[in-house]
Amino acid sequence: MDFRIEKDTLGEVKVPTDKYWGAQTERSRNNFKIGTPASMPKEIVRGFAYLKKAAAYANCDLAVLSVEKRDAIATVCDEILEGKLDDQFPLVIWQTGSGTQSNMNVNEVIANRAQVLAGFKIGEGEPVLKANDDVNKSQSSNDTFPTGMHIAAYKMVVETTIPGVKKLRDTLQAKANEFKEVVKIGRTHLMDATPLTLGQEISGYVAQLDYGLKALKNTLPHLSEIALGGTAVGTGLNTPEGYDVKVAEYIAKFTGHPFVTAPNKFEALASHDAIVESHAALKQLAVSLNKIANDIRMLASGPRSGIGEILIPENEPGSSIMPGKVNPTQCEAMTMVCAQVMGNDVAISVGGMQGHYELNVFKPMMAANMLQSARLLGDACVSFDEHCVQGIQPNYGRIKELVDNSLMLVTALNTKIGYYKSAEIAQTAHKNGTTLKEEAIRLGYVSAEDFDNWVRPEDMV
Amino acid sequence: MDFRIEKDTLGEVKVPTDKYWGAQTERSRNNFKIGTPASMPKEIVRGFAYLKKAAAYANCDLAVLSVEKRDAIATVCDEILEGKLDDQFPLVIWQTGSGTQSNMNVNEVIANRAQVLAGFKIGEGEPVLKANDDVNKSQSSNDTFPTGMHIAAYKMVVETTIPGVKKLRDTLQAKANEFKEVVKIGRTHLMDATPLTLGQEISGYVAQLDYGLKALKNTLPHLSEIALGGTAVGTGLNTPEGYDVKVAEYIAKFTGHPFVTAPNKFEALASHDAIVESHAALKQLAVSLNKIANDIRMLASGPRSGIGEILIPENEPGSSIMPGKVNPTQCEAMTMVCAQVMGNDVAISVGGMQGHYELNVFKPMMAANMLQSARLLGDACVSFDEHCVQGIQPNYGRIKELVDNSLMLVTALNTKIGYYKSAEIAQTAHKNGTTLKEEAIRLGYVSAEDFDNWVRPEDMV
Amino acid sequence: MDFRIEKDTLGEVKVPTDKYWGAQTERSRNNFKIGTPASMPKEIVRGFAYLKKAAAYANCDLAVLSVEKRDAIATVCDEILEGKLDDQFPLVIWQTGSGTQSNMNVNEVIANRAQVLAGFKIGEGEPVLKANDDVNKSQSSNDTFPTGMHIAAYKMVVETTIPGVKKLRDTLQAKANEFKEVVKIGRTHLMDATPLTLGQEISGYVAQLDYGLKALKNTLPHLSEIALGGTAVGTGLNTPEGYDVKVAEYIAKFTGHPFVTAPNKFEALASHDAIVESHAALKQLAVSLNKIANDIRMLASGPRSGIGEILIPENEPGSSIMPGKVNPTQCEAMTMVCAQVMGNDVAISVGGMQGHYELNVFKPMMAANMLQSARLLGDACVSFDEHCVQGIQPNYGRIKELVDNSLMLVTALNTKIGYYKSAEIAQTAHKNGTTLKEEAIRLGYVSAEDFDNWVRPEDMV
Amino acid sequence: MDFRIEKDTLGEVKVPTDKYWGAQTERSRNNFKIGTPASMPKEIVRGFAYLKKAAAYANCDLAVLSVEKRDAIATVCDEILEGKLDDQFPLVIWQTGSGTQSNMNVNEVIANRAQVLAGFKIGEGEPVLKANDDVNKSQSSNDTFPTGMHIAAYKMVVETTIPGVKKLRDTLQAKANEFKEVVKIGRTHLMDATPLTLGQEISGYVAQLDYGLKALKNTLPHLSEIALGGTAVGTGLNTPEGYDVKVAEYIAKFTGHPFVTAPNKFEALASHDAIVESHAALKQLAVSLNKIANDIRMLASGPRSGIGEILIPENEPGSSIMPGKVNPTQCEAMTMVCAQVMGNDVAISVGGMQGHYELNVFKPMMAANMLQSARLLGDACVSFDEHCVQGIQPNYGRIKELVDNSLMLVTALNTKIGYYKSAEIAQTAHKNGTTLKEEAIRLGYVSAEDFDNWVRPEDMV
Repeated sequence: MDFRIEKDTLGEVKVPTDKYWGAQTERSRNNFKIGTPASMPKEIVRGFAYLKKAAAYANCDLAVLSVEKRDAIATVCDEILEGKLDDQFPLVIWQTGSGTQSNMNVNEVIANRAQVLAGFKIGEGEPVLKANDDVNKSQSSNDTFPTGMHIAAYKMVVETTIPGVKKLRDTLQAKANEFKEVVKIGRTHLMDATPLTLGQEISGYVAQLDYGLKALKNTLPHLSEIALGGTAVGTGLNTPEGYDVKVAEYIAKFTGHPFVTAPNKFEALASHDAIVESHAALKQLAVSLNKIANDIRMLASGPRSGIGEILIPENEPGSSIMPGKVNPTQCEAMTMVCAQVMGNDVAISVGGMQGHYELNVFKPMMAANMLQSARLLGDACVSFDEHCVQGIQPNYGRIKELVDNSLMLVTALNTKIGYYKSAEIAQTAHKNGTTLKEEAIRLGYVSAEDFDNWVRPEDMV
Repeated sequence: MDFRIEKDTLGEVKVPTDKYWGAQTERSRNNFKIGTPASMPKEIVRGFAYLKKAAAYANCDLAVLSVEKRDAIATVCDEILEGKLDDQFPLVIWQTGSGTQSNMNVNEVIANRAQVLAGFKIGEGEPVLKANDDVNKSQSSNDTFPTGMHIAAYKMVVETTIPGVKKLRDTLQAKANEFKEVVKIGRTHLMDATPLTLGQEISGYVAQLDYGLKALKNTLPHLSEIALGGTAVGTGLNTPEGYDVKVAEYIAKFTGHPFVTAPNKFEALASHDAIVESHAALKQLAVSLNKIANDIRMLASGPRSGIGEILIPENEPGSSIMPGKVNPTQCEAMTMVCAQVMGNDVAISVGGMQGHYELNVFKPMMAANMLQSARLLGDACVSFDEHCVQGIQPNYGRIKELVDNSLMLVTALNTKIGYYKSAEIAQTAHKNGTTLKEEAIRLGYVSAEDFDNWVRPEDMV
Repeated sequence: MDFRIEKDTLGEVKVPTDKYWGAQTERSRNNFKIGTPASMPKEIVRGFAYLKKAAAYANCDLAVLSVEKRDAIATVCDEILEGKLDDQFPLVIWQTGSGTQSNMNVNEVIANRAQVLAGFKIGEGEPVLKANDDVNKSQSSNDTFPTGMHIAAYKMVVETTIPGVKKLRDTLQAKANEFKEVVKIGRTHLMDATPLTLGQEISGYVAQLDYGLKALKNTLPHLSEIALGGTAVGTGLNTPEGYDVKVAEYIAKFTGHPFVTAPNKFEALASHDAIVESHAALKQLAVSLNKIANDIRMLASGPRSGIGEILIPENEPGSSIMPGKVNPTQCEAMTMVCAQVMGNDVAISVGGMQGHYELNVFKPMMAANMLQSARLLGDACVSFDEHCVQGIQPNYGRIKELVDNSLMLVTALNTKIGYYKSAEIAQTAHKNGTTLKEEAIRLGYVSAEDFDNWVRPEDMV
Repeated sequence: MDFRIEKDTLGEVKVPTDKYWGAQTERSRNNFKIGTPASMPKEIVRGFAYLKKAAAYANCDLAVLSVEKRDAIATVCDEILEGKLDDQFPLVIWQTGSGTQSNMNVNEVIANRAQVLAGFKIGEGEPVLKANDDVNKSQSSNDTFPTGMHIAAYKMVVETTIPGVKKLRDTLQAKANEFKEVVKIGRTHLMDATPLTLGQEISGYVAQLDYGLKALKNTLPHLSEIALGGTAVGTGLNTPEGYDVKVAEYIAKFTGHPFVTAPNKFEALASHDAIVESHAALKQLAVSLNKIANDIRMLASGPRSGIGEILIPENEPGSSIMPGKVNPTQCEAMTMVCAQVMGNDVAISVGGMQGHYELNVFKPMMAANMLQSARLLGDACVSFDEHCVQGIQPNYGRIKELVDNSLMLVTALNTKIGYYKSAEIAQTAHKNGTTLKEEAIRLGYVSAEDFDNWVRPEDMV
């Protein structure tokens, strides 16, 4: 491979000729061979592109950067946002915990790419942009990386997670309406209980997702606050007056999302509780979705030896050995995603709790877990919705058969003959394998007519 | 021991004569010998007392319970709330997951105690109250237990957790103000960085707690919703019209907290996402407090071989073998509490995700963890505040010594002579063990006068 | 209340007259009002009693303590072990993370109780024993507390957890043998699959517990290593030659368990990976037991609208509102315990990962979680065994009905007519609500005779 | 894009012409658009290649597959193992929880690639191999996927994790030996304590890793057991006699690792406690490594305002804004990995606890987390070793300065003048900012000569 020589404050480094990155990126590539290469999420890189462009504009407005330099920076940032430079970001999550090397990766790529766009070779001619002094002007890794991760996380949550959950929630709501008259047996402790409608059952799922969405939205204000302007330790050293507010305005403008400058920059560098907070809401959604997906697969179980009260779409052959088998595979993908989110929540919390002094150095790990959870939940909800929930249909015959046989209909008699006599009827019918009505009459507690009037599943929901 | 005979629908059971509980409580005592006896939190029992009394009032208002029975129930509930019957609740957390047996424990104690208050012996005379038909009227374990746990959790959060955190937060705010001019070295990656003031550093802690309190308060509306009125499966079977709203009003009145009836009772029985949601905010606070306590003990470390920038109170001899040793013990209690809350969050989430159909049967476990976390955090904040944070003082000499020596003051030169020359100055001073000023002049990059004008820690904060 | 004055190196403290503890215990009581009083597990206190006695013997053998003092110490330790002094240990888990205050609590109680046993009042006469110089001789909190927690944890694991799990495992093994010919439908993805016997199904549970027990036993050697002899930082400062080995021998003798001195005392103070390691095995058991208990309640679900293939004992009325309902309550207690253990594992790991330099200061929290998990799992297994698993019986009629109807018996035809034709038969039967045999013949793929010879559930297991 | 038509039992599917996969793979691609495409770990695909080849050999030996088919299968498996077909496996982790679709992906690729190798186009000519009947012969997804994940996990653990940890451990051992005479101050509770040597301190890290390696190795027997031969539900339906043992022998032969057939196939399908067990040992290592990396960065902190007792390599510029800053970046990468492993442990446990009946359907998620943790830990240890630990050097001057000033040297006087007088000396010196010796003499407790003889750091280690 061909190399060129790049330099930083520690000396010279060989860099592949066909790459825009510089010395610090290359050092990181060599020093952190941990896991899959280029694992730093691309959403973070794009978050950086937004903020570098915004910083250039703010610096220019505040007269510490020329218009030419601003535009040179902005042009490359736009290329990054279009995905044209994706192969220029080779670094991994498992680098320095401040993400300094990814910040420098972006700085170096912007500087060198601008040099090429200006018609020079990298390293030749007067530098159009200096990575540290121009591209990184009024910035530190310590405020850019958290800004980049908030941009990436916020976008993922509002562009992927929330719409995905919402889509699923709306389908469930439609199903709740559609099946609001379908009386079925209820189950508590997995045991037969008093009846409810299938619509009521599903309405509980809708409520869960509504609470989850509300909880997630509650966290957005914190997540919309960005650290940029705090620089090294939160004091804003080396930034021009008014920069933090202005740069946040540009980020808001460029992204279309309501980002604002964090009121306390010390918190914004030293802790990442906004990530902890937002991810906790994702975890709550995972808890809810696990329950929902689990219920649906139990209700659909069978076809002959399970519960079988609902039918779900048959999307693919279910078994490589059992012919004709069809499985609740979307439920399985969903519950696996939920388990992952549960784990990611611990990873994020463990990182969040270990900040030291002015800086938390678990940033890339926290960001990567946040982005994974937000994406997986959003995608999984869409998949679950389209390939499973939209196709749910009641298995009417089975539903009626089960509710009509249920011993727990006896509960309707509590207010008529008391709990103890009702229990005796149910226990006797259970023991004898008979119906409640037969035993109610035989025991002399209820007349046939009263029984028919009092014990009506459709009146118990 | 003396026994009397009690009965339930499964038959006869011997119960200690001196206890008010009945057959079902005794069965549970015998069937669940798991862990410490009587581990069911007393706060849950008191939550039940509130709701049983409220149910009696609502039932009476709605004409399904006599005034006499209402008052008989209310009288015993008041005794429970006064703590007079604490030894009547012997059951454990690790019972049925619906808490049915604790519901029956309360029902039985109320019925039997009322019998005694009416001048009878237990089991003698016409029953004043029947446990299932009167005390439990318009109720099911499935809606009472979640109601009891919401009452207990809400009260603990607003009466213990929030005031405790707030108290600590206010002291930190006062310290942030008090030390806002104390310029000290900053540290990122645990390494020397640019300066900030001690007040600024502490202001980050205040911000963390403010976000945590806000996050916790965001969860209170969900937690204030109660399941009562849903009865067995959420349909409200066997409740009079209007009962759910009315009973919530009575609970609000009796507790002084804004409880309301849950809009979707199916969700309120089958999932406990409100507990998941509130506990996630407690976990966020634990993440924050761990960082804060850890910082404080590192800043106070020494006295001669540590950081030593702050002094904290010496509360007790620190060592049984090292004479004169004093330790940051409050920080340790706090960080242990934080670790516990991290674990409890997983326990709660694991329980929350495993609801089945119409009921989640991890209720007592979830409630116990929620209550433990809420109490520990509140108590630990008060203890940490009173015995540590209130006594924090800067170690002025040490602070000045460290900031004056810092190589990272060189950052102020970035905007004057560029990043690379600044780095050379710092690296040379580091290598030679000299000062920045010496090397800046020696290298010919900055004059002595400029250095003194440009590199001023007090201007860098 | 009456008080006497006690002193330590920080000055005077008022202590209740009727208590044996001294100044440091009282300071801790006042400084750590966090959670329930006296929450420090009694098993830890008893672990201390073993080690204080052992230290006295070793010190005496090595000529640094008189026989009289040795015996004075030993006498009080025996009283502690008999439970006579349980009300003398009022401290909480949430104290200093080294447990120093609980060490001093034991030292003070031993010294003052010995004074009383010698016929003096506390604080009067020449001290029989000095808390620091005699009772704590050759010890530090830093090596005593981890020793106490290893003693307590080891004893709980081998005396409660392992026997409890073993008892359950043996019952399951007996059931596996008893039901080894009971052919039933298998279920994968919760969907009907090829048959197996009930005994085979249960044999999987036995295997899980066997692996879990093996994993737990693998951790015992590490847990049997004790820190005593390391004193303050692991160097063994202020201990006589040979003390560490000798004191471990006495602990082994007094407890009847094979404790040995830790080969590396620095590890034994600064990390508690032995607790992390043993608890991970408890967590594995929790993972297994959750699966087992969940399966059992699903198999027993019904009685009329569930799976209903097995019958489990009816131990108590299951509902306060639904008469005659019986629930799988032991399964619920077990799965709640499993969720708790999952959480405790995180608490312990979070504590374990945060040791600093020569000491981990999450000791009491880690010990308390370890002991809770070990006890809950042992107790829950016994309860689950006695009140549920021993009573499991097949519901023969239901089992036969389900297996005979199963479409997945078609799998036996794979090797005869290929996967695709087999799938066609199953799909057609599913669509038409017919039997496999009918469709196999109708499609012309198999003769009636061949079908009967080839598709035999009892040959498929 | 060009397509061809592929079929399965549910009908026709369009597949890209240039791909070897078939209908079921394509269905999965379309039905599970969740997260990054092709996220199923390649190690799993290779695990499948080993087992498909082994199954072909075993089937051939047992006369249920021809030599020609065996060799056709083996040839493609070898290509997969060489990485030649990596772009033929497009599926994601978040598919069916049995991994059926990845099993079929492998079956389909092998069948179609064999067709091409035989000189045909896909879908033309007599099929050389049928995906279900030949490639999958004597197999089910339910036993192949767990086998594939055990092969992948075992290989990763023994080929990457253990060597990586071992390499780091050996360097630490060498450092422990090298610095065994370097007396330094000890720290407990982050506070100054009695001295030890730097070698002793590091020896504690070595001990931690030794315990972790032992714990990890303890799990290998369980992980070496493979499910293959259990087929659909564990009974081994449709396998020839002796197949399970034989196929394990072939897997052992082909991989060079001691795989054996699982003694209980029901456990091997329905639970993945072997993964839970092995990952728990990885988590223990993460707990240890977090402590070690954290200690090292604290010991190296500074350069002027931290502890500064050791020097670590300066690998890259540490800051984009603070010139000359160097950070403990390897420690940060390591602790981020540790946090991830902590989270993955929860994800795996949550998956492991939710198996149902005869199958656990969290397989791909569990496998992916296991592989990530095993790789990250191994890689991070190598990186940490090469770029940090190998370069650790004592900062001798700083170490001596700190130990000589330490007040905790007073502990050596305990056995001479008692704990209380020693405490008085230390407290007075602390208050006055003087030396122990000065105060010991001034208080009249020790002569200068005795002090010099008794208080010698080098004798206290």
